[in-house]
Amino acid sequence: MNPEPEPPAQESRIRASFASQGLMRTLGATLTRIAPGEVDITMPPTPAISQQHGFIHAGAVAAIADSAAGYAALTLMPPNRGVLTAEFKINLLAPATGDLILARGRVIKAGRTLTLAQAEIVSQTGGQQKLIAHLTATLMSIEGRAGITD
Amino acid sequence: MNPEPEPPAQESRIRASFASQGLMRTLGATLTRIAPGEVDITMPPTPAISQQHGFIHAGAVAAIADSAAGYAALTLMPPNRGVLTAEFKINLLAPATGDLILARGRVIKAGRTLTLAQAEIVSQTGGQQKLIAHLTATLMSIEGRAGITD
Amino acid sequence: MNPEPEPPAQESRIRASFASQGLMRTLGATLTRIAPGEVDITMPPTPAISQQHGFIHAGAVAAIADSAAGYAALTLMPPNRGVLTAEFKINLLAPATGDLILARGRVIKAGRTLTLAQAEIVSQTGGQQKLIAHLTATLMSIEGRAGITD
Amino acid sequence: MNPEPEPPAQESRIRASFASQGLMRTLGATLTRIAPGEVDITMPPTPAISQQHGFIHAGAVAAIADSAAGYAALTLMPPNRGVLTAEFKINLLAPATGDLILARGRVIKAGRTLTLAQAEIVSQTGGQQKLIAHLTATLMSIEGRAGITD
Repeated sequence: MNPEPEPPAQESRIRASFASQGLMRTLGATLTRIAPGEVDITMPPTPAISQQHGFIHAGAVAAIADSAAGYAALTLMPPNRGVLTAEFKINLLAPATGDLILARGRVIKAGRTLTLAQAEIVSQTGGQQKLIAHLTATLMSIEGRAGITD
Repeated sequence: MNPEPEPPAQESRIRASFASQGLMRTLGATLTRIAPGEVDITMPPTPAISQQHGFIHAGAVAAIADSAAGYAALTLMPPNRGVLTAEFKINLLAPATGDLILARGRVIKAGRTLTLAQAEIVSQTGGQQKLIAHLTATLMSIEGRAGITD
Repeated sequence: MNPEPEPPAQESRIRASFASQGLMRTLGATLTRIAPGEVDITMPPTPAISQQHGFIHAGAVAAIADSAAGYAALTLMPPNRGVLTAEFKINLLAPATGDLILARGRVIKAGRTLTLAQAEIVSQTGGQQKLIAHLTATLMSIEGRAGITD
Repeated sequence: MNPEPEPPAQESRIRASFASQGLMRTLGATLTRIAPGEVDITMPPTPAISQQHGFIHAGAVAAIADSAAGYAALTLMPPNRGVLTAEFKINLLAPATGDLILARGRVIKAGRTLTLAQAEIVSQTGGQQKLIAHLTATLMSIEGRAGITD
């Protein structure tokens, strides 16, 4: 989605940070879009992330949604500041099934100390999309703590 | 809390259901305690469940906390009813590190349609425990839907 | 906002229900817009609804936001069904001040048992609007319980 | 918990702050207990705080619960720091009715920037108590902003 040969610094920073999240690799998640205040993450359903009824576990859905919301917040932070999730809330609206799960993170309000972001999580089946979950997250901006910058 | 030599049906049902959650196996989680209205789950920190600063990812913490809360609710359900998480909210209070993460699920109010449960998540380091996260979850009781009984 | 001489049944039902909410009258709140899946409520700042710093109390903001979300859900319910708030979550983004507070309720996903709605709360000062709070609410649909139909 | 004949400065500070909350007066709420990390607030049901079914409006319940949680946090703050609610989440477990509503605020984890508090809300009818709602709130500690010290 970015035709330029060299990605901007903000995008590189977020791709590097995402690559260092062991959980995202374990879940099979991919960072598919970065824009100012917006980040998309996708994840394919596999038995490795299931709950007892065969659907994707709410925890796996929450994990990519939290990362999408957090990285959406990070796109708006200066290079010397990182973010930590202070809290999040997720509503599970339908069983997580389908060909692919997509979490679309978006900043609602960026603040000096706290940022509110949300993520809409949709399942894609064939050419169709269905809203399956909705998350809001409060991210805390941190600076100069143990070298945290992402 | 259970002096009987053979685990009751309720405990077997929950152990079988937990064993079928692919995500719990992927995260390395273990079901360590079942009592009426209460379930404990533990998880060791590994690089496979990390976030970008090397702590355990909030999504992994949320996943075991959601399962602990959900199974705490299931202990109070009759055999023909299962539960689904309708929503949960988690506050991350301190970085998730240490030797072991323990999520203690407990039912606050069991209702006909909706049950409120919470989980306290502590990190154990040496002999010490520290509260690192707090979750509340709303579980919806379901019956006769596609054979769901857990 | 409705040029027709006779408001539709759904609108009458919601106006009558709103008029019976003693708290809305006590807070000085007004129902200003009804559309399918959407309801707006406004409230002027007064000392009667203040917190200790002179801003509007988060509880008053939450009250009109909860009503806006709940009535947005009710617009999509058949005549014999009412709604009760099962839970809500509100993020307070900026002090609630200004000439008028406006809560815009909107349904995100309408379900058979549970409906997810949100409300954006803005303060209006002069001709400008500022987002001051964001609420998500889970509404439970109820039928035939003690004659509840709103 | 305080054997001294004269209330400590912390208690005076909180009583003065509560007295300046116009909304608490409007709702008929009373501050009934202050201890380190704990504050109780009561409110009698009246038509002035009702919702459409004659129960107490969730917004009024949330308002006293938010104040109870916030003042519980304030009991642990030094004199030059105040608190603002960053977000709260409330689960409504049963209709709010009875002779008196009691919100018991309690700090779960006090932090430098953010404090997590909860409130259990019970209805008292005759000599019996029933849990009707449960709130968790994130309070942000503020210092030196426009003279805010409560």
